[in-house]
Amino acid sequence: MRRSKAFSRRKFLAAAGASAASLLIPARSFGSSLGSKDWNMPSTGASSAWQNKGVIDLSNSPCARLKTIPVSAVTIQEGFWSKRRATNVQSSIPGMHDELIEHGRMDNFLRLEGKASASQLGPVYSDSDMYKWLEAVGFALQTQDHPDLRQTADLTIRQIVAAQEPSGYLNTYYVQDRASLRMLPKTQTTGHELYNIGHLLQGAIAYYRATGDPTLLEAGMRFVDNFLLPNYGPSANQKPIVAGHPEIEMSLIELYRTTGNHKYLELAGYILHGDSRISLTPEQIVYMYCGIPFTSRTKLEGHAVRAMYACCGATDYYLETGDPTYLKTLTALSHDLVEHQLYVTGGVGARDSGEAFGDAYELPNARAYGESCAAIGNMMWNWRMLSATGNALHADVIERALYNGINSGMSLDGKLYCYRNPLAFDPSSGDKIRNPWYDTTCCPPNLERTFASLPGYFYSTSKDGIYVHLYDNSELRWKLDSGNAIKITQQTRYPWEGKVDLRVSPATPEEFTLFVRIPGWSKRSTLKVNGKPVENISPGSYAAIRRRWSGEELVELEFDMQPQMVHANPAVADDTGRVAMQRGPVVFCMEQLDQAGNSPQEFPLVAAMLAGESEAQFDPNLLEGVVVLTHSGIIAAQSTQSLYDTGPVSKKAAHDVKLKLIPYYAWANREPSSMQVWIPYA
Amino acid sequence: MRRSKAFSRRKFLAAAGASAASLLIPARSFGSSLGSKDWNMPSTGASSAWQNKGVIDLSNSPCARLKTIPVSAVTIQEGFWSKRRATNVQSSIPGMHDELIEHGRMDNFLRLEGKASASQLGPVYSDSDMYKWLEAVGFALQTQDHPDLRQTADLTIRQIVAAQEPSGYLNTYYVQDRASLRMLPKTQTTGHELYNIGHLLQGAIAYYRATGDPTLLEAGMRFVDNFLLPNYGPSANQKPIVAGHPEIEMSLIELYRTTGNHKYLELAGYILHGDSRISLTPEQIVYMYCGIPFTSRTKLEGHAVRAMYACCGATDYYLETGDPTYLKTLTALSHDLVEHQLYVTGGVGARDSGEAFGDAYELPNARAYGESCAAIGNMMWNWRMLSATGNALHADVIERALYNGINSGMSLDGKLYCYRNPLAFDPSSGDKIRNPWYDTTCCPPNLERTFASLPGYFYSTSKDGIYVHLYDNSELRWKLDSGNAIKITQQTRYPWEGKVDLRVSPATPEEFTLFVRIPGWSKRSTLKVNGKPVENISPGSYAAIRRRWSGEELVELEFDMQPQMVHANPAVADDTGRVAMQRGPVVFCMEQLDQAGNSPQEFPLVAAMLAGESEAQFDPNLLEGVVVLTHSGIIAAQSTQSLYDTGPVSKKAAHDVKLKLIPYYAWANREPSSMQVWIPYA
Repeated sequence: MRRSKAFSRRKFLAAAGASAASLLIPARSFGSSLGSKDWNMPSTGASSAWQNKGVIDLSNSPCARLKTIPVSAVTIQEGFWSKRRATNVQSSIPGMHDELIEHGRMDNFLRLEGKASASQLGPVYSDSDMYKWLEAVGFALQTQDHPDLRQTADLTIRQIVAAQEPSGYLNTYYVQDRASLRMLPKTQTTGHELYNIGHLLQGAIAYYRATGDPTLLEAGMRFVDNFLLPNYGPSANQKPIVAGHPEIEMSLIELYRTTGNHKYLELAGYILHGDSRISLTPEQIVYMYCGIPFTSRTKLEGHAVRAMYACCGATDYYLETGDPTYLKTLTALSHDLVEHQLYVTGGVGARDSGEAFGDAYELPNARAYGESCAAIGNMMWNWRMLSATGNALHADVIERALYNGINSGMSLDGKLYCYRNPLAFDPSSGDKIRNPWYDTTCCPPNLERTFASLPGYFYSTSKDGIYVHLYDNSELRWKLDSGNAIKITQQTRYPWEGKVDLRVSPATPEEFTLFVRIPGWSKRSTLKVNGKPVENISPGSYAAIRRRWSGEELVELEFDMQPQMVHANPAVADDTGRVAMQRGPVVFCMEQLDQAGNSPQEFPLVAAMLAGESEAQFDPNLLEGVVVLTHSGIIAAQSTQSLYDTGPVSKKAAHDVKLKLIPYYAWANREPSSMQVWIPYA
Repeated sequence: MRRSKAFSRRKFLAAAGASAASLLIPARSFGSSLGSKDWNMPSTGASSAWQNKGVIDLSNSPCARLKTIPVSAVTIQEGFWSKRRATNVQSSIPGMHDELIEHGRMDNFLRLEGKASASQLGPVYSDSDMYKWLEAVGFALQTQDHPDLRQTADLTIRQIVAAQEPSGYLNTYYVQDRASLRMLPKTQTTGHELYNIGHLLQGAIAYYRATGDPTLLEAGMRFVDNFLLPNYGPSANQKPIVAGHPEIEMSLIELYRTTGNHKYLELAGYILHGDSRISLTPEQIVYMYCGIPFTSRTKLEGHAVRAMYACCGATDYYLETGDPTYLKTLTALSHDLVEHQLYVTGGVGARDSGEAFGDAYELPNARAYGESCAAIGNMMWNWRMLSATGNALHADVIERALYNGINSGMSLDGKLYCYRNPLAFDPSSGDKIRNPWYDTTCCPPNLERTFASLPGYFYSTSKDGIYVHLYDNSELRWKLDSGNAIKITQQTRYPWEGKVDLRVSPATPEEFTLFVRIPGWSKRSTLKVNGKPVENISPGSYAAIRRRWSGEELVELEFDMQPQMVHANPAVADDTGRVAMQRGPVVFCMEQLDQAGNSPQEFPLVAAMLAGESEAQFDPNLLEGVVVLTHSGIIAAQSTQSLYDTGPVSKKAAHDVKLKLIPYYAWANREPSSMQVWIPYA
C-alpha cells in the first residue's frame, strides 16, 4: 500500500539475475586472478564477473549515460596523487587498523565469540569502522597486491562473520541486554543497525571485487535475506523500516548490481520512500534526511552526511529505475548544493550543531563544520549524478571536493585526520584539528577508501565513446562500448601546471568521441589533436572530439593556470569584503607561520588584506612540494585593541606586505597556526 | 576547609545587623507608606527602612564608590522612555500574567495546595517565571501605585507561600515522586532549585521595598534559614552546594543588604567559591560558570546568562567585602567583555549552542544568539561595576545594552518578546523572532523588571556629590551624602537630539561635585554651567563640576549627534568590509521593507552597500516616532544566481540607491522582513 509509484516501475530493471549464490565465486588469490589481465584482452565486464568493476558498477545500469570503468583499469603514475595513494596504503590503512584494534573495534566481535572479555566499546556505529576499513583494503587490492593487508583483512572477515547469529543478525551493540532493542522504531532512528550493515555490504563488495572472496558478502546477504527481508518491509505482516542514517540504500543497490537480484533494489526503493508506520517528528525528518519519500525533498538540510548518503542512494535508484521524479528531485537538490550550500573547498555542512546544512548561503568560515565524510559524500553523490547526466558541473564539484575539502582531511604523512575542515582557524581556540583517532572515527577510513578507489573516478565510457574526468600522470587500459580495447596515457604536472598530454590508442581503429573535461575554472583553454587546434572550447563542459581514432594519437590540453580571485555571492554574509584564491583546481589559504615576521604580534593574520596581483611558484621543499602564491597585501591600520572604532574607514596607516599562500589541503601540517581561506581584499 | 581566603575577610563588613525578623515591618498599604514622601524630607535611607531603595541597595556597602538612589527618587517624564514604561505596566506586565496563568505557572503551586489537579507544567525553572513577574510588579509599585497589579500580586504571593513545606523547601517541580532528587549534586547542576529561590528573593525584596509586605520575603528566608543553611554549606556535616545557574549569589547578598545578616553574605561567598566536594566536568565548569572559585576565572565563556549573573554576584560580593582578588578578576572579565565579546548592540552570547559566549571576536550577526536575558545580565553586571569603580566605561556598556540589545527585546506594543536578538535576519529562515510566549519564558519578565526599575539607573551619589548616568526628561528628588535634599530636572529630546538641560537645586546651598556623563560615542561635546563653558570634556568619562551649588542652576549639555560609522576590529571576521551606523546611543539597522521597491527581487538587501554620508531626520509617524537615517548606497553588481564568481572584483555595474535605516530596537515591529545591522561599505 505504501509503495511509491516509482517503486513498482521496473521496466528498466535488468532481467532477473541468477540467484546470489550462483554468482559467488570461491576465493582465489589476487595474483592469479587480476594479475593475468592484459590491456589488449580486457575481461568481458559482464555482471557475472566479480572483478573489473568500477567504484560503483554501472555496467548494466539502464539509466547510466556514463558507465564507470574498473578501479583496476587506471594506473596512477608518479605525480600529484601517487604520493598520497602510496601513503594511504603504506601508512594510513595499516595505522588505522592498529587504532581500530587498540580501541576495541574487533574486541566487540571477538567478545561475542567468547574470545575477548571487554564490554562493548565505542558508539553504536563502531562496527562500521571495521567495514569501512575493509572497503579501503578492498579498493586497494583492486589495483595492487598487498599481501599483508590481504592477510589481515581475511582474518578480520573471519572474525566478523563468526559473530553473526544464526538468524543472520550481525551487530556488536544490540546484543545481550540490548538485544530486545533491535530494530525498534527508536533504535532504527538512532541505533545505526542498517547503517552498519550498509557499510558491511560496501566493504564486502569492494573486497569481493578485489579477491573474489565472498565470505563477508555472504554474511551481509544472510543479514538481508534471512533477518531483514522476512521481517521488515512494506507488507502488513512486516515491520516498518526507517534508515535512520542513510547508507543502506546505496549499499542494497550495489548488492543488486552485484547479484542481479531485484529484491535488493526493491528494498532500497521502499526505504527511500519511507514508511509512515514509523512516525517521526519534523526535526527527525530534517535531521535524518529519510523517513518520508525522498522525492518530496526540496532542499538540502539536516545532517550533511545523512543527506549526501541519501542522495547517493536516490541517484543509484534513478540509475537503475529511471524514475523521473527521482531525477527531478535530485536535479533540484543539486542546484541547491551549488547555488547555496557548497563551500569553495567542496565541503558541505555549515553547522556544528547537528553536523548540519545551514540556511541558504550560511557558509561560516571559522565555524564551518565541513566534515570530511560530508565532502566525500558530496563527491560520491556527484559521481552518481555525473554518471546519470554527463553534466560537467558534477565533475567540477567532484574535483573541487577532491583536491580541497577531502584532500585536507588527511595529513601529508597519512597519520592524522580532520573531522572538521574549517575555512579559517585560530589555534587559540584550543581546537586540535588533526588527530590520529576519533571515538566517532567515521572520517579516517572514509578518506582511506576514497583515495584507494580514486583511479575509478578518472574515466567513464558511454555509447558514444569515452570521458576523461580527472587529470594526472596515468595509464588507462580498458575498452570502449564496442568491446574494442583502448589505452590512454596522461602526461602532466597537473594541478601545478595546466598542460596535459593525452595519448589515445584504441586496439583497432574506431570512430568514437573522446570527451575531455574542460574545468569550469579554466576560462581560457586550448585543445589540440595531433597538433591541430580544436575550437569552441567552453569552461565547465566536455569538449567532444569525434573522429576515427587509430594507432596512438596525441591530444594536448592547456588550461588557464592564472591565479583567480573568487568572490562569493553577496548573500554569503561571511565572505563580504573577502576573496578566496584559487589556481587550477587548488584553493589556497594563508597560514600565520608563512608570513614575514611569523608572529601574530608583528603580523596579525586577521588584519592582512590582499591587494594587487599574485605570483605562483612551485616550491619542491615545502609541504612535499606545492605551488605557493605570493600576493601583494597590506596590514589594516586599525588598532588591534579596541573592538569597535568610529573613526573614518581608512587604510592610510596601513603598511604594505607580501602575503604567502599555500594550498588549503596542506594546511595544519606544521605547528598550529592561524589560517584563512577567505581573505579581506583592499 | 574549603573556604576561600576572601571568604574570611570580613573587615569591610557592616557591623552586625539586627536579626532579620526585627527588620520586617508588617504589610501596609502602598498609599499610606510611600505616598507620604516629600522631596524636601527624604527618608533617612538607613538599612532598617524598607522603602526608598535602589535597584540594588548600596547604602551600606563599604566598597561602593557610587551609591544607588531609590527607584522611586526619579520620575521619568514624557520622552523616550515614558511610552515604553507605560506600555510595560499597562500591557506587558498584565499580559504576561495572563500568559503565566494560562501556561499553568500558578497551577503548579495550587496543585500542591490541592487546588489544581494538573501535573507540573513547564520546565524545572518555571517557578522563577512567577518570581520575576513579581519583581517587575515590585519595581513598578516602587514608583507608582497600581492597585490591580498590587491585588494580583498579593494573591499570587499568598498562593505561592501556601505551597511552602514546613521544612522551608519551596519548589513545584521537585515534589512527590521527584522529591528524592532534591539538591542531589546532579539536580543542583541542572535542576535550578537555587536559581528559583534566587528569583524568589529578588522578587520578594522588590515587593517588600515597594509595599513593606514581607510575606514572600519571609518565605524566602525560611527556605534559606530552615532548609538550606542547616543542611548545605562548607562544613563537614553539611552537604555541598553548586549554584548550577548562578542567581542565588546576588540574591543572597541583596538579602544580606535587606536584613543586615552576615550569614547570607557568607553563604553567597561560599557558593561563589565553589565546593570541590561536587565534582564537575570541565564542560560543566565552563557552561555553568560556577563550581570553581570565581576568582580563578580568566575569561567570559559558557552560558552567557549564567556568566553574567555570576559576575553580578561576584561584584556584589566585592561591594560588600572589598576582596581585591574579586576586583582583579572582575576587571579582567570586564576587559574581555568590551574587547572581545560585546555586540555593538550591547548584547552578549554569540552561540546558539549552549546559549554561550564564543571565542574572542566570535560575533556572528545572523547567527548571533544575544539572548535578551544576557543583555540584561550585562547591564546588571555593569551597573554593579560602575558602582564599584565609578568608571564611565561601564555606563557606556549599560547605555549601549539598554537602548539597543535590551530595548529590542520587547515589541513596541509591549506584547511580543525576543528571546534571541540577532544582528541580521532573513525571514526565509522561518524563525519567528518576536513571540508572546516561550516555554522557557525567562526573557519577558526579565525585560519587564528592567523597564520597571529603570529610574533607579539614572543617578548615583558618592561622598563627593552626585552622578548623572542616563538622560531623559525626568525629575530626581533625593539627597546628597550630607543628607541635604536635592532636586535635578532634565529637559531633553535625547536620544534623538543631543541637547540636555539639567536644572540642579539643592535644598540648601552646598559645595559638591556634579558628575555628568559624557558618553564614549560623543566625540565633541559641550558643557556649560549657567551659560559658562566647561573645558576639557572627554568622551567616555564623567565631567566633574565641583562648585558651590545654590538655588536652581542650569547645566547645559550638547552631545555630538553626527551619525557615526562603526567598524569592528579586523579580528571580527563577520564584520569584515562592513560598518554599523550609530547616532547617539542608538544603533541602526536596515530592514528590507523600508527600501525603495520594497521587494527582495528589486532591491536585494544583502547586495546593498553604504557609500557616502547619512542624513538624520525624525519621523513622528514611523514606529512610534524614530530618527531615520538616509544613506547613499549602491547595489552590488554581482549576479545573485551564482554562489562563486571569479571575475575581477568590481562595482561597475552597480547602481546608486538611497538606503533607509531605522533604530535597531524597533526592528521586526512590522511584517517579517530581512534586516542587517552590519552593512557592507563600498
